[in-house]
Amino acid sequence: MKGQTSFFEALVGQIRLIHGDGPVPLHRPVFEGNEKRYLSECIDSNFVSSVGARVAEFERQIAEFTGARHAIATVNGTAALHVALRLAGVEPGDEVISQALTFIATCNAVSYIGAVPVFVDVDLDTLGMSPNALCAWLDAHTERRDGEAYNKTTGRRIAACVPMHTFGVPCRIQDIVSTCRDYGIPVVEDAAESLGSYVGKRHSGTFGALATLSFNGNKTITTGGGGMIITDDDALAKRAKHITTTSKVPHPYEFVHDEVGYNYRLPNLNAALGCAQMERLPAMLAIKREIAHRYRDFFAGRAGARFVEEPAGTTSNYWLNAIVLDSQRDRDELLRYTNEQGVMTRPIWRLMTGLPMFKDCQHDGLVNSLWLEERVVNLPSSVPEGAFGRLRT
Amino acid sequence: MKGQTSFFEALVGQIRLIHGDGPVPLHRPVFEGNEKRYLSECIDSNFVSSVGARVAEFERQIAEFTGARHAIATVNGTAALHVALRLAGVEPGDEVISQALTFIATCNAVSYIGAVPVFVDVDLDTLGMSPNALCAWLDAHTERRDGEAYNKTTGRRIAACVPMHTFGVPCRIQDIVSTCRDYGIPVVEDAAESLGSYVGKRHSGTFGALATLSFNGNKTITTGGGGMIITDDDALAKRAKHITTTSKVPHPYEFVHDEVGYNYRLPNLNAALGCAQMERLPAMLAIKREIAHRYRDFFAGRAGARFVEEPAGTTSNYWLNAIVLDSQRDRDELLRYTNEQGVMTRPIWRLMTGLPMFKDCQHDGLVNSLWLEERVVNLPSSVPEGAFGRLRT
Repeated sequence: MKGQTSFFEALVGQIRLIHGDGPVPLHRPVFEGNEKRYLSECIDSNFVSSVGARVAEFERQIAEFTGARHAIATVNGTAALHVALRLAGVEPGDEVISQALTFIATCNAVSYIGAVPVFVDVDLDTLGMSPNALCAWLDAHTERRDGEAYNKTTGRRIAACVPMHTFGVPCRIQDIVSTCRDYGIPVVEDAAESLGSYVGKRHSGTFGALATLSFNGNKTITTGGGGMIITDDDALAKRAKHITTTSKVPHPYEFVHDEVGYNYRLPNLNAALGCAQMERLPAMLAIKREIAHRYRDFFAGRAGARFVEEPAGTTSNYWLNAIVLDSQRDRDELLRYTNEQGVMTRPIWRLMTGLPMFKDCQHDGLVNSLWLEERVVNLPSSVPEGAFGRLRT
Repeated sequence: MKGQTSFFEALVGQIRLIHGDGPVPLHRPVFEGNEKRYLSECIDSNFVSSVGARVAEFERQIAEFTGARHAIATVNGTAALHVALRLAGVEPGDEVISQALTFIATCNAVSYIGAVPVFVDVDLDTLGMSPNALCAWLDAHTERRDGEAYNKTTGRRIAACVPMHTFGVPCRIQDIVSTCRDYGIPVVEDAAESLGSYVGKRHSGTFGALATLSFNGNKTITTGGGGMIITDDDALAKRAKHITTTSKVPHPYEFVHDEVGYNYRLPNLNAALGCAQMERLPAMLAIKREIAHRYRDFFAGRAGARFVEEPAGTTSNYWLNAIVLDSQRDRDELLRYTNEQGVMTRPIWRLMTGLPMFKDCQHDGLVNSLWLEERVVNLPSSVPEGAFGRLRT
């Protein structure tokens, strides 16, 4: 790239304008609300473990915010995905369609069940699953039997489809759900990164049969570790709570469990942190949006890098801002320069098909995924310290 | 039982002497140390998630306390068991020997791997796995091939043995380990309930290849939810940390994972609670021992119930005090009376062979297990509020 050094210098200057001097992490949590108070009250209540008022309250807050009828808190986002896939009906030996350009949790959850992922390509603008690629793959590789789709090559049932809202940018979820409906395939939305992202006025994660959120330390809001399953289906919600609570049949003191279950409930201590974080979520989203706009303006008309914007008709939470460089070489030099300057940037994930445990999984040409893998870089996206006051939100 | 009502009244009186008026739970946590301070510092540090100084410190405290060379903190005890079994070499289709008289987590962890439990009987005094029953079952049902044991009936490999230190009472772990060594079977000690329990001067959990602890809200010390893997083996410890951290290959910003891994690390927030709890552990154990002695003295010479004492040569942490009633009918009446009085008691777990998902698993006669299942009751065993000051520990 011509004028690369001055471009990198300008970018670091822009990042430091937003995030200040000193080392800049990619995404740090912000605790400027009731976090300490709620943790302290949680200790006073003596309920710190898997039963407690904060768990129910945090679930209510997430249900209200997303518009989902039910929210079930879990110990982390991977656990939420694992359970959501089981609830969607995935069984050992089944196949689950996902994207190769995703965080490892999506595919690990598929593996826990003894199922196998199949990868289709993503769209260049959303970085999320491409409905066209999905449609083409299903058309070429599946046959219908008894209202279900089977892979013609492997003979396995296609039991679920897991698109992801990458970095908070909404994927074309309505087209994906519509295609999957035609094939009798339930959709589990991996909304780990998209709390506060919308398609129209409808929150991401409310289009599929189920969706999962993450409250890991690097997410928009955090519970230390934590996740959530959301769904509008009463029966699925009831079952989600049951199997995440070791499938224990309710009784004041007897221990009867009616199926293999999981110790996957979010502790009340972590939920207390979540409740405080939720109170600041609208303000955080507004600040993150302002940061994204600053990045957008910085990259507007600049050669060598494209800023990943929310597609028309959608709202991104801009969890992690992303740019697409012209080449892998440019990307590597940007990563080297910025990280040397104490400004953390990182490349997008290695494609799942590039990891030893998923390299033999079936996939389409992955043309866009392979192209993006070499070129996408995430930029520091935290809410800056003290920003709540400064930005008058 | 003759004089049942006066016996029950006297017992409730004794419990109220220890635990005071008002509703008495079975086991509540006690937060009278640095819990709030460490949580607050954790928030100030901005490290609340799976990386942080408190995780390393909590691991160091547990290693030092138990005498294990390594301790790896996990999100809960079930996760610790799941990973410990994988590290012991358990694979899909294998069999794992355990006890039918245990909490469901032991068998769930076996199921997660796609392995199948086999149940042998427990001893009447320890409530834990009987080395004689184990020996008899192995002798009758297995054959040796290439240094490993195979089930003659099912043809499956016996990949591990998981004895449990029930309610903190040490089982005959040395005999169990010795027998398993003869058969080439690794032992994973389920020490979820036995932090502070010893055989001689050696801490429970340090006899097998690996052991697992739990810090659930009802345990001697709690982290909200949490667990630990302990081992003396350097390579197993390294691998435990790797696969509980999504098998991510260390790199400042690249995302490469080299096998299917788990999101199983304990968040720093929960570890902060654990660090504060550990500072009080010796005092808690002393108080719990005093409570056990009061129960022991109450039941001494009293017809109708036997107090479960630590076997000679061992030290129990007396996590949950237990008594053995004369009959199921006595047990049911005791449960009814005490719970009606606001004093929580509970029966021991339903045998695993009595649950639908494990009912077809191979097992021996389970004579003691079946007998105990009908007769064992747990008594309130918390450290009473304010006891740290009162009991001069």
